[in-house]
Amino acid sequence: MSRFWSKAVQELTPYQPGEQLQIPDLIKLNTNESPYGPSPKALAAIAQQVNDTLRLYPPPNSDALVTAIAKVYDLAPEQVFVGNGSDEVLAHIFLGLFKHQAPILFPDISYSFYPVYAQLYEIDVVRIPLNAQFQIQVDDYIAHPHHAGIIFPNPNAPTGQGLPLPEIERLLQGNRHCVVVIDEAYVDFGAESSVGLIAKYDNLLITHSLSKSRALAGLRVGYAMGNPALIEGLQRVKNSFNSYPIDRLAQAGATAAIADTVYLQETSAKVIASRTTLIKALDALGFQTIPSLANFVMTSHPKHSGMAIYTALRAHHILIRHFAKPRIDPYVRITVGTDQECERLITALTQIVAN
Amino acid sequence: MSRFWSKAVQELTPYQPGEQLQIPDLIKLNTNESPYGPSPKALAAIAQQVNDTLRLYPPPNSDALVTAIAKVYDLAPEQVFVGNGSDEVLAHIFLGLFKHQAPILFPDISYSFYPVYAQLYEIDVVRIPLNAQFQIQVDDYIAHPHHAGIIFPNPNAPTGQGLPLPEIERLLQGNRHCVVVIDEAYVDFGAESSVGLIAKYDNLLITHSLSKSRALAGLRVGYAMGNPALIEGLQRVKNSFNSYPIDRLAQAGATAAIADTVYLQETSAKVIASRTTLIKALDALGFQTIPSLANFVMTSHPKHSGMAIYTALRAHHILIRHFAKPRIDPYVRITVGTDQECERLITALTQIVAN
Repeated sequence: MSRFWSKAVQELTPYQPGEQLQIPDLIKLNTNESPYGPSPKALAAIAQQVNDTLRLYPPPNSDALVTAIAKVYDLAPEQVFVGNGSDEVLAHIFLGLFKHQAPILFPDISYSFYPVYAQLYEIDVVRIPLNAQFQIQVDDYIAHPHHAGIIFPNPNAPTGQGLPLPEIERLLQGNRHCVVVIDEAYVDFGAESSVGLIAKYDNLLITHSLSKSRALAGLRVGYAMGNPALIEGLQRVKNSFNSYPIDRLAQAGATAAIADTVYLQETSAKVIASRTTLIKALDALGFQTIPSLANFVMTSHPKHSGMAIYTALRAHHILIRHFAKPRIDPYVRITVGTDQECERLITALTQIVAN
Repeated sequence: MSRFWSKAVQELTPYQPGEQLQIPDLIKLNTNESPYGPSPKALAAIAQQVNDTLRLYPPPNSDALVTAIAKVYDLAPEQVFVGNGSDEVLAHIFLGLFKHQAPILFPDISYSFYPVYAQLYEIDVVRIPLNAQFQIQVDDYIAHPHHAGIIFPNPNAPTGQGLPLPEIERLLQGNRHCVVVIDEAYVDFGAESSVGLIAKYDNLLITHSLSKSRALAGLRVGYAMGNPALIEGLQRVKNSFNSYPIDRLAQAGATAAIADTVYLQETSAKVIASRTTLIKALDALGFQTIPSLANFVMTSHPKHSGMAIYTALRAHHILIRHFAKPRIDPYVRITVGTDQECERLITALTQIVAN
């Protein structure tokens, strides 16, 4: 604490990202990175830019990248906003589109950065409980009397549950007065994207990340797609915060990665197949796993606490994530790795649950 | 305008960065980039990281980079904060350390992003006029009755004037109650750094950029140095905004660039020598140039308006900057390029002033 800190900063509880340990034989299944490398075309595009042009500022609005995203999702460039990871995009959404008199709504179990942004920008929040099966109940968001925005991940994090498109459209129809943000960070692993609804709903904003299915967590690029007026609002925040948030190398790599949809489909299919195998193996060990459409699974064991499983796996040099939070405390969240990594995980868990 | 925009965003006038034109034979002297490439060691360090590890998140706190900066400036790592360009660092300073009840102070002629941050975070400002020679008058900042912070560049932008160290210390002694930020983006071109005062003043924060003297504008890295309590305040904002603001490639390149102080001194010395030559040539054409300790000069001609010079040079494919703002409207700001670029500039200006 310091007398120089502003009030909001004194009251903050900052977000805690997953650990980035430096252990040689570590199996890292804690931050939902891709087990595969990025598109070789992305690496080639970056390598071409490692030269003296780095002395020059990058294109401030990442034009080539915006154009590539628009093309892949059949949108106009004015419907696309890019940022330094989807975390920066989300931060700008909170300040630019969610800071009103009324509160915003999100699920009680959800991405734990949302309440942190709200604290940072002094935005009121109302947490809407998921049902007993950890599902979003759309009626709760329609019945809520007074709010200025809604945000949730689809599939949800850290549960992995997906919300079907008709339910999302029902939620949009019941909330035309406020911005609805669908955080699709994990959408490429089997959930239904809402991108097709952008033309129909001027209050719909969708965020994507290149850190998961596109295997570029190390490059820090995310984006939002929606009505041009919403995108312009985000541009105004960005241009009042940092003119050039995406460096030259990240723009080059992200542009090539976005265009390589074949590689995206191949690697996503591999993750989906590994997920099926992993869940079956967990079932056989007595774990109960929430149905997942993401590149991670949320699972619990009737005889072992989430914290105990996390700690025991760490002793095996396998890093997963445990959230010491209401309702999900008994669970652990495990990123779907390669088949080899999943096998080592299952071998370790077999020993752990036998004790 | 959109009903979905928050109040602050509706009222914003975003910052306008210098143009990034794509003209083949353009001489770009408008955004104070280095005319030389970055340290070859930085390029080599980046090239080593263009591989499958980009699938992994970067170290969230850029530990190796922080350590390198601390070593070069003889500080502890707890006294260093890094961000996505010094623009992001400045934004976090405004939200984390300047958002109080009282206004902040900065010169009437200064970096034009400061008032934009203040608008974004709804912080009151008082502009303190420079004197007729465009110099900061320290007494004005000591005499001001009630304020929560002070910020100015040293050397100042876009004037290039430096404030001597004893004057900065006098300002600090008269303002121990609030955070004083010295924005040293251009300090390596001849001004005196205040880094040595950090041990003595717990309210002093200094910001640096890798975009100017270290020739890495394309990589987006900046940093702040100061008392650990101030740095912790910035960390809290950062960890509530974006866990991983600096990508893997930028961390690698910036770490190597910071360590290569020999290259920094060589290229800065070349820029300083070119500045001397350029100012003499401008003198000979009848220009009046403000004494500059930066990698740019602010100059005016008794017979030609700033706008006219800007427009005429653009026709020669030479891009400089003109600010249509009170007091500095008659001037243009010209980045010091290579000697060859300066010669082409002087050739063009010789034609222009002859008309």
